[in-house]
Amino acid sequence: MINRYISERALRLESYKAEPNAQGIALDKNEIPWGLNDNVEEALIKRLKALRLNRYPDNDYANLKKAISKYTSVDTRSICIGNGSDELIHMALQAFTDPGDIIAVQNPTFPMYKVYGTICGVRVWEYNLDGNFEMKSDEFINCIQREKPRIVFLCNPNNPTGIKLELQEIEEILKRIDGIVIVDEAYFEFSGLTAAGLLPGYENLIILRTFSKALGLAGLRVGYMLASPAVISCFERVRPPFNVNTFAQAAAAEVLEDMGKVTERVEIIKGERKRLTALLKGLRGLQCFESWSNFILFRSGSTGKIYERLQEAGIYVRNFSNPVLKDCLRVTIGSPSENDSFYEAVKEVLYDGA
Amino acid sequence: MINRYISERALRLESYKAEPNAQGIALDKNEIPWGLNDNVEEALIKRLKALRLNRYPDNDYANLKKAISKYTSVDTRSICIGNGSDELIHMALQAFTDPGDIIAVQNPTFPMYKVYGTICGVRVWEYNLDGNFEMKSDEFINCIQREKPRIVFLCNPNNPTGIKLELQEIEEILKRIDGIVIVDEAYFEFSGLTAAGLLPGYENLIILRTFSKALGLAGLRVGYMLASPAVISCFERVRPPFNVNTFAQAAAAEVLEDMGKVTERVEIIKGERKRLTALLKGLRGLQCFESWSNFILFRSGSTGKIYERLQEAGIYVRNFSNPVLKDCLRVTIGSPSENDSFYEAVKEVLYDGA
Repeated sequence: MINRYISERALRLESYKAEPNAQGIALDKNEIPWGLNDNVEEALIKRLKALRLNRYPDNDYANLKKAISKYTSVDTRSICIGNGSDELIHMALQAFTDPGDIIAVQNPTFPMYKVYGTICGVRVWEYNLDGNFEMKSDEFINCIQREKPRIVFLCNPNNPTGIKLELQEIEEILKRIDGIVIVDEAYFEFSGLTAAGLLPGYENLIILRTFSKALGLAGLRVGYMLASPAVISCFERVRPPFNVNTFAQAAAAEVLEDMGKVTERVEIIKGERKRLTALLKGLRGLQCFESWSNFILFRSGSTGKIYERLQEAGIYVRNFSNPVLKDCLRVTIGSPSENDSFYEAVKEVLYDGA
Repeated sequence: MINRYISERALRLESYKAEPNAQGIALDKNEIPWGLNDNVEEALIKRLKALRLNRYPDNDYANLKKAISKYTSVDTRSICIGNGSDELIHMALQAFTDPGDIIAVQNPTFPMYKVYGTICGVRVWEYNLDGNFEMKSDEFINCIQREKPRIVFLCNPNNPTGIKLELQEIEEILKRIDGIVIVDEAYFEFSGLTAAGLLPGYENLIILRTFSKALGLAGLRVGYMLASPAVISCFERVRPPFNVNTFAQAAAAEVLEDMGKVTERVEIIKGERKRLTALLKGLRGLQCFESWSNFILFRSGSTGKIYERLQEAGIYVRNFSNPVLKDCLRVTIGSPSENDSFYEAVKEVLYDGA
């Protein structure tokens, strides 16, 4: 009976299936392998009483914006906070599209652009990357000028490929589009790449960032964006009041006070990325893509077997139903010993019976 | 330049202005006046490390749903969790309306039904309550049968009036509508009223609840809903993954373990509501509405002066721009001494120069 009442847009969607938090080695969600640093945890415990959790959160995010401003060197008036960067994606669609409008995304990329696009009733135009998951900028720009999307989403480095766009490619798109460009820099700390320097020149640029990856707070769901004050004021019209809770605001600000530890952890991950990439490249029958993120995408005729063997060993990686990612798996860079366990299991499958 | 890109729906909205958290006596947001109980705080501090905040939240909300199920005697498959009940309102619109559809709300009522309706591009049909903020059920049902809304929102007890609907009125609406009925029971613990008993009989009934009021966690933004498993599965299609963070999930479950304290606090608020209502009714030139919530609405020719005097005294109450609430103020029931300060200030204005 209820099916008579369901909306058309909901019918186009399936519920999101998150793998339950694995008890084994979780290399499937691009999290970092370490919990809160002791400094941050102690500070939060000390502050817990003063947070007055019976009161609604600060809807202006004054302290957190100040901390982000210090971290990014971007003015607080150019910052908006979301319940994860997911919510900022959804808000961007609400602020800059009406049902029937077009948005442009790459394929493959982070799937939530398309999901929220569907929820908002827009048409999602997909640009297929080439066999090595690279973009031909000229072709992309031609398509955009034809399709006239209200928003172009660029994930840089791209998820799940780890491949980067050059800054000049992004700037060329910004120059040639009559609409909004969203550069999702979820993996910024691992790539060192950012389009933030383009903000003063391009009022239509939005940069998305997150506390869920290098900053280690996936459990608290804090994302932020950097954009012109004009864009921020459009977001404020559609932002749900009190969208990020008091504890998450406090924890995010505390982590930014502890950047020495964050940098130390990022360096470990980058070192492990280099080591694991070299190891994987040394395996025959496996193509490994150069990553600017905290994960590595690889392709092999044996991914089915590899995925199975990893699961048996309690090691969880990401597989895909998207046909352009056929034969691909994505592995998050974990701790050195986790990466070793992963590598040994993959090697065993590929060299089995050799 | 950006104004060329803003969506039509965003243009219809203004950004939400939340009063900054007052340093004085905050009686404007229907919060309870007490912070986390010591038991709950100690439990959370103990659990903080085990929460593994570097990992994404449990997207199935298993522990929290189990705790809510125990509290409400409703099966876990009939529960959905939101980042505040605000998010559940937004999800209901996504799940059950498409742009151009109609929803029905009362006027006055909680304003966010209309805000999220506008974001979702639906037409909001408003039923004006009478001068005493009461609903004529027959008239309301006739209108609904004419307007054919996809969703009817009923806030019970209503915010900002505190006035209740009878269970049989709700059931009559459920019987006569070809759509979804959402009963917002944000103030359930203060009213003792619930339509939960109607759930087995009406697959189109949704009950909204929150941890922000009696349960004292406004700062953590946790709402929940009770509905048929068929309705829940529609919500799951549009629910953002990981929408409620790990700490909020844990804190909400801990509060439900400490219901003795919650009940004790609710009884204090109910006692104060009775006392303050009697005091206000004793004042000439002031009409005070009987409340089933943790706030009281009153009307007076002197509200402008009263509001001003309260602000001077550092006491914050809620005023309204909605014309049907002309001359009305809403005061949250605070601690006994806060209520005394409020009452004395009001009395001074009304009896000034008498």
